[in-house]
Amino acid sequence: MKWLRYKAHAEVHYGVLEDGGIRQMRGTPFGPHEPDGKKHALGDVALLPPVMPQTFYAVGANYVAHAHEANTLLKRNNAVPKKPDVGYRATSALIAHDEPIVIPADSAGVIQFEGELVAVIGRTAKRVSEAEALSYVLGYTIGNDVSERVWQAQDRTIWRSKNSDTFKPMGPWIETEVDLVQLVTRVRLNGKQVSEFNTNNMVFGVARYISEISQYITMHPGDVIWMGAEAPTLDMRHGDVVEVEIGNIGVLRNPVVAEGRGP
Amino acid sequence: MKWLRYKAHAEVHYGVLEDGGIRQMRGTPFGPHEPDGKKHALGDVALLPPVMPQTFYAVGANYVAHAHEANTLLKRNNAVPKKPDVGYRATSALIAHDEPIVIPADSAGVIQFEGELVAVIGRTAKRVSEAEALSYVLGYTIGNDVSERVWQAQDRTIWRSKNSDTFKPMGPWIETEVDLVQLVTRVRLNGKQVSEFNTNNMVFGVARYISEISQYITMHPGDVIWMGAEAPTLDMRHGDVVEVEIGNIGVLRNPVVAEGRGP
Repeated sequence: MKWLRYKAHAEVHYGVLEDGGIRQMRGTPFGPHEPDGKKHALGDVALLPPVMPQTFYAVGANYVAHAHEANTLLKRNNAVPKKPDVGYRATSALIAHDEPIVIPADSAGVIQFEGELVAVIGRTAKRVSEAEALSYVLGYTIGNDVSERVWQAQDRTIWRSKNSDTFKPMGPWIETEVDLVQLVTRVRLNGKQVSEFNTNNMVFGVARYISEISQYITMHPGDVIWMGAEAPTLDMRHGDVVEVEIGNIGVLRNPVVAEGRGP
Repeated sequence: MKWLRYKAHAEVHYGVLEDGGIRQMRGTPFGPHEPDGKKHALGDVALLPPVMPQTFYAVGANYVAHAHEANTLLKRNNAVPKKPDVGYRATSALIAHDEPIVIPADSAGVIQFEGELVAVIGRTAKRVSEAEALSYVLGYTIGNDVSERVWQAQDRTIWRSKNSDTFKPMGPWIETEVDLVQLVTRVRLNGKQVSEFNTNNMVFGVARYISEISQYITMHPGDVIWMGAEAPTLDMRHGDVVEVEIGNIGVLRNPVVAEGRGP
């Protein structure tokens, strides 16, 4: 089942993808819900990020080749993580499928994609075991962890390099039926495939992260965990279109524009 | 004016402190609001964190003596920041005035307070100048940036050292009339003053941070910026009561309990 969040007639709704159209729902995927009788064509609504999380978790250096690539990009020499330590991102950076990624005017211009699996928490999780962790996931969506590498290397934190407005495309929807071990992530730049990897080939997987986080922090319905990307993560320029496809979840597509220039 | 957020009769409301009691409001301080005619005694309601931010910003190493103290605590040698880089915290860690700070069962036990001024954003801010930045602040509250120093030194990120459940007491309310340069922060442990400093004696002040963040990130009504603490930041133990008092804002008080032990 694919859950979408969108704006139709100036109101925000959740709906379910059916026969290429949207069956609108009363309620949300995180609580009671039922069809409200309305339907929309997919092209008639403005998609929104499929959830606005209370807490936005993001995993860094969770694939071996990218962990090494990041050392080169950022002129450092960090080891591949030995335990699952997570980070945070700003929800203000989230944009939807098809919305433009805007390169800030004063960026040095090294703006890269990172195509990532996103786990969406479906129910409150505290102190859950690794074995039961995946039962707390409502479903999965796709994220593009856009990064400004010059700022990432020079700032004390990743606040603007990873969280500037529009730097967190997420969508297009939440797929509830996912077999993690079957997933393949593919990134295309202007239609040409530039990255392909087995999504689940992580240093620490979704279940391990949820279990570890929940030992200390109560996870809430709608929280998201961005699971990291594998190398290569390449530059994007004004006029590019970037697509991240993950298995049966779908394709997250966003154009890239330089601030102050038309698309 | 002091804005409180609280639960009364199982419903969440905003109200304003008047003559030691609460005048309940319809709406929020971030939008249209008016008295709804109801009043409460302060002791009859359960205070909540005065706002649940969309994005929770926190400034590290923003006072010179604490920047040096942190180097000793964390066995590192970072310079005092040369520009205002901000970090993020998890809203799931927020608790209200009088709620207990819980020391996790597997903590090594080095749990410290950091008494901090918190600026609450009142209206949408993007690309605001330092001169106009303070006009985007609704008011100020108080935060205690509780930190587990062993985890902070050993983890790759500050995810659990700074964000474990209950580690972010905030309150008791938002004071809208504040003269930043007059503020003094005092921290008391079991009634004894253990820290005192001029609140505004920051490496980079509130206006500078808001201006800098807003160059890249749209700040939203209700977003909070925790402005950092001055040295000393001292250990808290089971049974302690910690109070952070800042000028005319008020006193944020929380008991400290070890997980699994009664108060």
